[in-house]
Amino acid sequence: MNKPVDERPLAVVLLSGGLDSATVLAIAHQDYRCIALSFDYHQRHVSELQAARRLAGRYAVEHRIVQLDAAVLSGSALTDNSIAVPDQPEPGIPVTYVPARNTVFLAHALAIAETAGSNDIFIGVNAVDYSGYPDCRPEYIEAFATMANLATRKAVEGQRLQLHTPLISLTKAAIIQRGHALDVDYADTVSCYQADDQGRACGVCDSCRFRRAGFEEAGLADPTRYQ
Amino acid sequence: MNKPVDERPLAVVLLSGGLDSATVLAIAHQDYRCIALSFDYHQRHVSELQAARRLAGRYAVEHRIVQLDAAVLSGSALTDNSIAVPDQPEPGIPVTYVPARNTVFLAHALAIAETAGSNDIFIGVNAVDYSGYPDCRPEYIEAFATMANLATRKAVEGQRLQLHTPLISLTKAAIIQRGHALDVDYADTVSCYQADDQGRACGVCDSCRFRRAGFEEAGLADPTRYQ
Repeated sequence: MNKPVDERPLAVVLLSGGLDSATVLAIAHQDYRCIALSFDYHQRHVSELQAARRLAGRYAVEHRIVQLDAAVLSGSALTDNSIAVPDQPEPGIPVTYVPARNTVFLAHALAIAETAGSNDIFIGVNAVDYSGYPDCRPEYIEAFATMANLATRKAVEGQRLQLHTPLISLTKAAIIQRGHALDVDYADTVSCYQADDQGRACGVCDSCRFRRAGFEEAGLADPTRYQ
Repeated sequence: MNKPVDERPLAVVLLSGGLDSATVLAIAHQDYRCIALSFDYHQRHVSELQAARRLAGRYAVEHRIVQLDAAVLSGSALTDNSIAVPDQPEPGIPVTYVPARNTVFLAHALAIAETAGSNDIFIGVNAVDYSGYPDCRPEYIEAFATMANLATRKAVEGQRLQLHTPLISLTKAAIIQRGHALDVDYADTVSCYQADDQGRACGVCDSCRFRRAGFEEAGLADPTRYQ
């Protein structure tokens, strides 16, 4: 049984609209009142924001979409249409890496958490079946939490911020199984780096490959719609 | 002698338009090509952005003003006109504290530095004559730098980001003397938390008090214009 709604503490949940963050929202929603936080950073795959809206509506949580300055998160295939999204795995950190994206996202989450009176931030980073982004690794997350606990009035007053990463060490299949057990409808989600306006996936980018293989390994039907 | 301009490395310098950041820009400008970075966060004291423009022009550096979402840096006397800026010192962290402000600013600086190809960020935090904000303390700055050096592609590739805080242990008088020696024209700067549209100071807020006492202690003429 979940606790009565009014007694739940408040959490800020980063919600991209993808498979991982949808699962995190389902996990957080069990024990917390949630503010879902999405970012319009002029990403190529705007349909993920539509997916985020659907998910926030499904869980009936407050949804904030923060507008980021167009010039900030640039220099990536995800934000610059002149750089193609690769259809093959790349060695090293791929061109879909967005400089300092999770730091910018988490900084905003920290500000909103403090103002809203929350000590809990959830983020769906994963360091197993992922694109090798540096700001998804456990050591990065730990360092951000250490910094955050020196940054705020709350921290000085002794309230400890928890940065929750429930997916960090799970395979994509295990994430899907966890979400399936929580009744996440993955048809609501968009993972593809270059999904079209209807949220249909390309099927060949890194994110599509991890997603497809995850459903196969989990032995569950894949609701992804392809272009 | 300064190095020839083309050989200087690139730095991102946070420039609020106040006395401290003007001094930092003068210091950084000696050895670096600079991108000055300011933020429009719907602050009460918009004339500090005008001051930042004047300063960037004076040093002929590139100036970027990042628009922050109005809803993010709220909950402070500096961003909410319904909260008065105090005219007396307060115990503890004052109501002019803006939740996670330096974390949001530095996160943007980190993204811009990586995209622009810079390994150096300058920030004019000071932990001596200051308002007691948690995100101005040396331990916070060190933790941010540790996090930043795990966050980016550059870091993974072995390029170390330096977070320069040349003022952190100086008194306000020492900062003013340093800037004076570098020909900073403090008439260009606005420190007041509630300066008017012409950049004229209130004379009674925390920031005005530190500034006025600093000029007195430094034994230098104070060019501040008061309301």
